[in-house]
Amino acid sequence: MKVGIIMGSDSDLEVMKDAAETLEKFGVPFEITVASAHRTPERVHQWVTTAEQRGIEVIIAGAGMAAHLPGVVASLTTLPVIGVPIKGKALEGLDALFSIVQMPPGIPVATVAINSAKNAALLALQILGIKYPEVKEKLKAYKEKMKEEVLKKAAKLEAIGYKKYLED
Amino acid sequence: MKVGIIMGSDSDLEVMKDAAETLEKFGVPFEITVASAHRTPERVHQWVTTAEQRGIEVIIAGAGMAAHLPGVVASLTTLPVIGVPIKGKALEGLDALFSIVQMPPGIPVATVAINSAKNAALLALQILGIKYPEVKEKLKAYKEKMKEEVLKKAAKLEAIGYKKYLED
Amino acid sequence: MKVGIIMGSDSDLEVMKDAAETLEKFGVPFEITVASAHRTPERVHQWVTTAEQRGIEVIIAGAGMAAHLPGVVASLTTLPVIGVPIKGKALEGLDALFSIVQMPPGIPVATVAINSAKNAALLALQILGIKYPEVKEKLKAYKEKMKEEVLKKAAKLEAIGYKKYLED
Amino acid sequence: MKVGIIMGSDSDLEVMKDAAETLEKFGVPFEITVASAHRTPERVHQWVTTAEQRGIEVIIAGAGMAAHLPGVVASLTTLPVIGVPIKGKALEGLDALFSIVQMPPGIPVATVAINSAKNAALLALQILGIKYPEVKEKLKAYKEKMKEEVLKKAAKLEAIGYKKYLED
Amino acid sequence: MKVGIIMGSDSDLEVMKDAAETLEKFGVPFEITVASAHRTPERVHQWVTTAEQRGIEVIIAGAGMAAHLPGVVASLTTLPVIGVPIKGKALEGLDALFSIVQMPPGIPVATVAINSAKNAALLALQILGIKYPEVKEKLKAYKEKMKEEVLKKAAKLEAIGYKKYLED
Amino acid sequence: MKVGIIMGSDSDLEVMKDAAETLEKFGVPFEITVASAHRTPERVHQWVTTAEQRGIEVIIAGAGMAAHLPGVVASLTTLPVIGVPIKGKALEGLDALFSIVQMPPGIPVATVAINSAKNAALLALQILGIKYPEVKEKLKAYKEKMKEEVLKKAAKLEAIGYKKYLED
Amino acid sequence: MKVGIIMGSDSDLEVMKDAAETLEKFGVPFEITVASAHRTPERVHQWVTTAEQRGIEVIIAGAGMAAHLPGVVASLTTLPVIGVPIKGKALEGLDALFSIVQMPPGIPVATVAINSAKNAALLALQILGIKYPEVKEKLKAYKEKMKEEVLKKAAKLEAIGYKKYLED
Amino acid sequence: MKVGIIMGSDSDLEVMKDAAETLEKFGVPFEITVASAHRTPERVHQWVTTAEQRGIEVIIAGAGMAAHLPGVVASLTTLPVIGVPIKGKALEGLDALFSIVQMPPGIPVATVAINSAKNAALLALQILGIKYPEVKEKLKAYKEKMKEEVLKKAAKLEAIGYKKYLED
Repeated sequence: MKVGIIMGSDSDLEVMKDAAETLEKFGVPFEITVASAHRTPERVHQWVTTAEQRGIEVIIAGAGMAAHLPGVVASLTTLPVIGVPIKGKALEGLDALFSIVQMPPGIPVATVAINSAKNAALLALQILGIKYPEVKEKLKAYKEKMKEEVLKKAAKLEAIGYKKYLED
Repeated sequence: MKVGIIMGSDSDLEVMKDAAETLEKFGVPFEITVASAHRTPERVHQWVTTAEQRGIEVIIAGAGMAAHLPGVVASLTTLPVIGVPIKGKALEGLDALFSIVQMPPGIPVATVAINSAKNAALLALQILGIKYPEVKEKLKAYKEKMKEEVLKKAAKLEAIGYKKYLED
Repeated sequence: MKVGIIMGSDSDLEVMKDAAETLEKFGVPFEITVASAHRTPERVHQWVTTAEQRGIEVIIAGAGMAAHLPGVVASLTTLPVIGVPIKGKALEGLDALFSIVQMPPGIPVATVAINSAKNAALLALQILGIKYPEVKEKLKAYKEKMKEEVLKKAAKLEAIGYKKYLED
Repeated sequence: MKVGIIMGSDSDLEVMKDAAETLEKFGVPFEITVASAHRTPERVHQWVTTAEQRGIEVIIAGAGMAAHLPGVVASLTTLPVIGVPIKGKALEGLDALFSIVQMPPGIPVATVAINSAKNAALLALQILGIKYPEVKEKLKAYKEKMKEEVLKKAAKLEAIGYKKYLED
Repeated sequence: MKVGIIMGSDSDLEVMKDAAETLEKFGVPFEITVASAHRTPERVHQWVTTAEQRGIEVIIAGAGMAAHLPGVVASLTTLPVIGVPIKGKALEGLDALFSIVQMPPGIPVATVAINSAKNAALLALQILGIKYPEVKEKLKAYKEKMKEEVLKKAAKLEAIGYKKYLED
Repeated sequence: MKVGIIMGSDSDLEVMKDAAETLEKFGVPFEITVASAHRTPERVHQWVTTAEQRGIEVIIAGAGMAAHLPGVVASLTTLPVIGVPIKGKALEGLDALFSIVQMPPGIPVATVAINSAKNAALLALQILGIKYPEVKEKLKAYKEKMKEEVLKKAAKLEAIGYKKYLED
Repeated sequence: MKVGIIMGSDSDLEVMKDAAETLEKFGVPFEITVASAHRTPERVHQWVTTAEQRGIEVIIAGAGMAAHLPGVVASLTTLPVIGVPIKGKALEGLDALFSIVQMPPGIPVATVAINSAKNAALLALQILGIKYPEVKEKLKAYKEKMKEEVLKKAAKLEAIGYKKYLED
Repeated sequence: MKVGIIMGSDSDLEVMKDAAETLEKFGVPFEITVASAHRTPERVHQWVTTAEQRGIEVIIAGAGMAAHLPGVVASLTTLPVIGVPIKGKALEGLDALFSIVQMPPGIPVATVAINSAKNAALLALQILGIKYPEVKEKLKAYKEKMKEEVLKKAAKLEAIGYKKYLED
């Protein structure tokens, strides 16, 4: 069981690290690398077409601007590919979102929210969860924990009032 | 092995039927239903929380406008949920796209292109493919066939020229 | 007479506190809590379906990104629900605005401007005002006061000129 | 108990008639008129400032393009004002949406989806419902009926399959 | 000969001062005031309907968000009205731009660029210039001066090179 | 007294004819021509720089897509220039709107709504009205007539009801 | 001297034929083919990496939705690549435009207007023109002819008036 | 062999310097100047129409807001013109992008990404490369170097892990 994380530039790592951290929390192994669809197309080709052999079952690909990497990865494999649009210096991330989500018929990319590498990892875990019961169990526990955290915050807010809550 | 297809309104069926047809071509069983996140929240709750028991492993959810259905479904399960934004009468589908893809941390929805129910089905198949080798094999064959169709078109275009091609 | 304020995350409180402060100024009681439509759907369900019993007559719901909370709340009650789109880190608040305002037929959400929790409170007061004459009276006085403040600023600007006004 | 419906141009009536029809179904009286914020500001002023005396408790205002009517109405009353953005010949209704929803602090407009006059009426009914129990009862019945219609469609779809459903 | 400058809030003055400064440079008298279309509709009405009597020949109106002020002003006069969309905290000024420029048939507003109060003043001067030859003469001189400034910068850039130019 | 109407392509005439018709109704003479900023820059230069000599006092310029014509015209004259953004086959007119309204400091273009050549003519008349009292008188009468038309429609709608009104 | 025209799908041919027709008018040879970046990445790779050997000096690539083809082509060659964004069924062509123009540093794509395959061909000819004087001569003649056509239309419009012109 | 770099304002130099630096790295001579399409149309005309005589073979034009400069330059020459949209204080660069890329039929501008003056230079070099083999050789080496840099980063990331990489 392994996830592959690939990003178009090392400047994307600041966002994509959230995916790695989330997988670590779940104890799921992953590979992480940088490979530009435009500057190193051969490396992308080689990395993706051998991914299955290396045990990778889901791929997370992050990129900004005209973010082609997730789609290019998806064109080279039948593994599920999750795309993370990364916000650049203009257009509020809309360019990356459109470039990733609007894939033509035949080659889907599972797109998550702008900069949401954490959700990409959770989606990868949900996908693995259909095969590995232990991952599904952990996801259920995670979901439960998220719920409890919100409930704890709600209880605190209701107990101390919004003014004190904001001061904390 | 089963896919669940759910949509917010029966007017979405014109788009969502592409998902059903694609799954049929691959011989993958599916359930298909209508259940509005807003008009029938209890039914959505009941359908989703029992989905796993009914053997569903991936869910495809389509909706338009403030398309909450995919996110609401995702909040109720740890199965992977694929969202299909459906273009409405205004805003060119952007409202549904944002309402589906911009999910907050913790609850991802795997979003595909606007109206692209076919890609939702293919993504569901890729997800199933990590568990069921026969699905992966069919996806590889499908990918090969797509390639051949493009190559055939290319050969024809190069043989007869663009003018005759357009007349055909 | 009571208003319910609910928000998807405690990070929204920085914006939503304006609603609470405005209601306090009008001396209208309110409940305020955190309950995520996605992380704690059951709690949202329980909070909303018992709201009427607790005396709540109008609900203000704030959320960002794919802001489903206001619509989910509206699906569970016939009380008027006011939605506050909260600006996130990308897309300038447009994602939250579309996710709240573009509700499908049958389940309206009364949407106010991005981050405008203050206007949400004033709208709640206008709604209460059709039933409670004392609230309407206070709104009329508030409107009068707003007018006077603008008139005072206008008088000052006309008296001292724009340069001095800016220096103040 | 009365609702006021006002629109900026008689060309908006094709959309705004949905509000009138919905109120009729609920047996709630209404006034309906045309009064442009720009072409007949005095008439808008007169109609709005006397609305309360004529028994109007909620106002629905529809307009397209730089849709000022709802905001101008709201500036003249403390009654709750519901705005319906109407899609024009360009910009997909985004101009009307922004012009209605982005009201400055102090003067809220309860905005509904583009062209969604039906939801404007339902919101008006929800507002009246906090004062008139019979309206609230009818809304609960309406909500129940909406649910049943979706459930009936779901049952039919599950019974006859998506292909036959589409042929019907 | 006089220009009227009106803005929806004193927070707009930081932008609108550019209009005042430009008119001062041209020696053209102006009135400047604050009057919200929503908070002080009567004052706007009074200020605009008496503007002509006070000698005002062109009006510059600036506002942000659902920027109704320019259109409301235009509805009350046959004087030319210039609108300045002011960028708010969300939506990059697009809300104010649409609310000002997309006026319905019959009531035009002469819209300039977002935050471009300086251009509003220059447009006012061009309008006055068709009646007052001395204003037109000054505009021609101003245009000449703008040209010379650009030419000077070009000469400097060509002389010292782009690196030194940037260091200056 | 004369208005100049210039457009980038004869395909714009379908929209721009509204300006001509409106000026004719007011009995104000005009010149109308086609001259592309990109295909015939010399002709634009010649037409604009001699406009004043030919008696033109206001210029209306319409163009679509990257609509440079209004700005190029404005760069060549100190006459007020009114820009009409024309909706093209993509982007809903937003490209033309931005290309016309977002002029840099120094060279304003008085922009009206997308495709609103009628409002361009009315704005031209308002500008002429500050110099020619007879034009202002006609504008006041026109405004009065617009008002009466709306009032007549309102009276009819109130008299016969919305259903019969729609059937007419 | 040869131009390569490549498009992502044969459904793009309806738009891309304009490029071919324009090159034919200039007597410049071209290759035209279909090759999807996602369905046939190997064929794209092979076609592009051998383009130079086949005598191609400029490449025109057209694609819609998440239009990766132009960028993928550019990643595989140092020939200039011109991208044509093709309008799809949603989003008004904005998805294709962003996916083509927002290329990351290092790999430019020369982007033209949405659906503007004709301009792509003219740009290819301008590029060839820096090497082949006969192409530049033809471009100068073409520019002259465009000018004359506009001038002829202007003369006609001025001669017969806008009403008769529209009837023709 | 020479490139011309022109920009609308010296405030654009902060962005446009990237083009100059890139050309310097390739040892390709260039001219760089400031000339506003609106403030100095005659200078633009003179600079562009004599560019060919001065040995310029490709022109790079950068501008912000209603960025007419690239299109105006293109209207005056048959040399290839590359446009750089520059992000302004509002609208995230979308205004400049639309104003440059959406050129009408007949006059193309080769548009690159917002603020991407570096890519403009690389595109200019690719164009020169079809005529000057030494430029093409350098581009191939540059492409190789880009690849190696990415590969080096990938190797480092894979060797030290993402956490240490981020600390560096």
